[in-house]
Amino acid sequence: MSQLSIDGESLRAAIEQTATFGAVDAAEGRGRTALPASEANGAARAYFCERLREAGLDVRVDAVGNIAGRWTPPSADPEADPVVAGSHLDSVPRGGIFDGVLGVYSALEAVRAIQESDATPVRPLEVVCFTGEEGTRFADGVLGSSVATGKRSVEDALALSDGDTTLEAALDAIGYRGTGRLDASDWDAWLELHIEQTTRLADAGVPLGIVTDITGTTRCHVTITGEADHSGTTAMDDRTDALAAASELVLEVERRATETAETGTGTAVGTVGSLDVEPNVVNVVPGEASLQLDIRATDQREIQRQLDAVRRLLDALERHRGVSTSLTCDYDVPPTAMSERCQQTAADAAAQRGIPTRRVHSGAGHDTMQVATVTDAGLLFVASENGHSHSPKELARWEDCTAATTVLADALLALATETRT
Amino acid sequence: MSQLSIDGESLRAAIEQTATFGAVDAAEGRGRTALPASEANGAARAYFCERLREAGLDVRVDAVGNIAGRWTPPSADPEADPVVAGSHLDSVPRGGIFDGVLGVYSALEAVRAIQESDATPVRPLEVVCFTGEEGTRFADGVLGSSVATGKRSVEDALALSDGDTTLEAALDAIGYRGTGRLDASDWDAWLELHIEQTTRLADAGVPLGIVTDITGTTRCHVTITGEADHSGTTAMDDRTDALAAASELVLEVERRATETAETGTGTAVGTVGSLDVEPNVVNVVPGEASLQLDIRATDQREIQRQLDAVRRLLDALERHRGVSTSLTCDYDVPPTAMSERCQQTAADAAAQRGIPTRRVHSGAGHDTMQVATVTDAGLLFVASENGHSHSPKELARWEDCTAATTVLADALLALATETRT
Repeated sequence: MSQLSIDGESLRAAIEQTATFGAVDAAEGRGRTALPASEANGAARAYFCERLREAGLDVRVDAVGNIAGRWTPPSADPEADPVVAGSHLDSVPRGGIFDGVLGVYSALEAVRAIQESDATPVRPLEVVCFTGEEGTRFADGVLGSSVATGKRSVEDALALSDGDTTLEAALDAIGYRGTGRLDASDWDAWLELHIEQTTRLADAGVPLGIVTDITGTTRCHVTITGEADHSGTTAMDDRTDALAAASELVLEVERRATETAETGTGTAVGTVGSLDVEPNVVNVVPGEASLQLDIRATDQREIQRQLDAVRRLLDALERHRGVSTSLTCDYDVPPTAMSERCQQTAADAAAQRGIPTRRVHSGAGHDTMQVATVTDAGLLFVASENGHSHSPKELARWEDCTAATTVLADALLALATETRT
Repeated sequence: MSQLSIDGESLRAAIEQTATFGAVDAAEGRGRTALPASEANGAARAYFCERLREAGLDVRVDAVGNIAGRWTPPSADPEADPVVAGSHLDSVPRGGIFDGVLGVYSALEAVRAIQESDATPVRPLEVVCFTGEEGTRFADGVLGSSVATGKRSVEDALALSDGDTTLEAALDAIGYRGTGRLDASDWDAWLELHIEQTTRLADAGVPLGIVTDITGTTRCHVTITGEADHSGTTAMDDRTDALAAASELVLEVERRATETAETGTGTAVGTVGSLDVEPNVVNVVPGEASLQLDIRATDQREIQRQLDAVRRLLDALERHRGVSTSLTCDYDVPPTAMSERCQQTAADAAAQRGIPTRRVHSGAGHDTMQVATVTDAGLLFVASENGHSHSPKELARWEDCTAATTVLADALLALATETRT
């Protein structure tokens, strides 16, 4: 059987074309803003569907805008569970051009390479683009895959609002509210190729990472309420300064995450990403501080350890500073292990091609962590040149993208060809 | 000579009428929003000018909107330097109804009481309303008095912008850009009556405070620049977290001010009133933090000690956290002692009326601190029921306002009657 051959130029052209939808000015690199169901995201979807159809795939769009292009090889049983790959086409504001886009077009190029080979897969192959992977509009992220895996109903998803409009109306506006529901539990296996979001692979000089686990993520809102007072006339010992209390929390989150990372799996991180102060003027002692926490680890106990420290500190702040506090954790995704079958299939494919790989964990959430709850799922990383992510400075080498897509194609073919009992 | 008699009802009516201009909803208390040269401030000015004219005062408005109403008693030398009292009619957003308003209308009621007495002042009396005492629009505060004392030119003041419009255009819009320049250096003496902005007087059960010193205030902008990174994929020891660094600064400012207050004059305060984070989203390690500091004391060395601590901490943050920092202190008003003559005149007046007083410092800046640089100036405080300031909850007892206005009137008359060598 002849080896699959990836068209690296076609992959690059598709990524660069997608970069023009919602393109932003950037002093360094190339960036784009294509929020979920925005006009720019609509343009990226239209181009994607056109490319799927050009490749002879049957395109369908489900009720929450998830796009699937199916190819049923002549050698396949049309009723067999498909082998699926893909990612997403939405971006954060001023995001990079690889994040998500590499995943959908590497999947398409992989299927095209299989089509053009003399391989005889026994399962259909699908290329999927999920709606709203980034948590920047309508939801905290992995929106389309949460519907495709039954975590969230179509109705709930369509009713989500960005404050101005609903997902339903936004999808209608770009013409991508379809029918039915993509059901990932029907898939035999799933693979996603994504640019790494740190420099472990580049530091090791390895183009491809095989992900073992995706960290769990818990996000919490904290409100600390003190008393807004005149900054000149209120003596230091008469104050209940919400920002000073919040500052203790910021430092405690940092300290505990560092300690947990040093003593545990090495994957723990903890961040206070946002802090808003009221009334936030120079001459008023802050009366209220609102913080958002993001706590992660591949071991749920390490997440819990960090959360316990947050709770203890909030109690101490109430006792010692007289503030009142609230803690709400409304985003809680547990750590997810990748399927051994998918990991091994990708590792074997890379080894046969002589492409060096490294086992890594993913510190970022991906649609794959949802898919992994209903079927065998694997996640592959292409080395990031500089580790920048969610930034125009995000950068991968085109040759690494091609090499990684070759491994993806080989792995998809192997998965689609093996007969399972 | 018969005693002066203050019309407390008239004072209350004027304050309550002014409270209707820019009135805001408040669960507790009464509040108003009348930013400098806003429509609400214009309405308050129009009502004030009407009241001045009703009392037979000659009203003039200077080029930056300062308003002066002059009464020249038949017994006075029209050329003599006047004795002046007043305050301001602008407010912070959702400010209280006494702050500033009490000062202008107590001055007017004091003059009316002198007019109605058989007293024979030898100097003219003036009632003044300064433009933009609160630092919420166009400048950091004490705007009109900084022009009247020659600290700032008329041209510079008129060119100040709130981002949308200039002071000149805003004054034109409300019809309060006059001509000439009120010159406080021509005044024989100045008194301002203001509600206290803490509870020292109320705690002591004393209706009236005689201010000895106004604290100096230094305000600084600090920028701390780290590196914005993905909160999931960036290991703890790879981060340059601007918010964590900023949190150390917030706590250091609090710690040093507390220590300085405990070991010094007891007047030192230090506040980080505002903190803005970029990009301020849950899943990004903060890349930049901007802070505003407000540092005060009646002793300049105590301000310096706090600033030195800020500088040392910023140096340490650069060394230990790898952030870059900048510190700009563009508002720097030195501590100001009140005139002994004004303090003593007010103390004597209160003693003769049997009204208990207490010597206090002012932790807040007032137009009086500007006026004190060019002539004898005094500041009196009415007890605040609860210490709330810049809030609808701000509250003074009407009987205390009347008693304090009585002392103000007696003191103004004494100043306007005494012949100085």
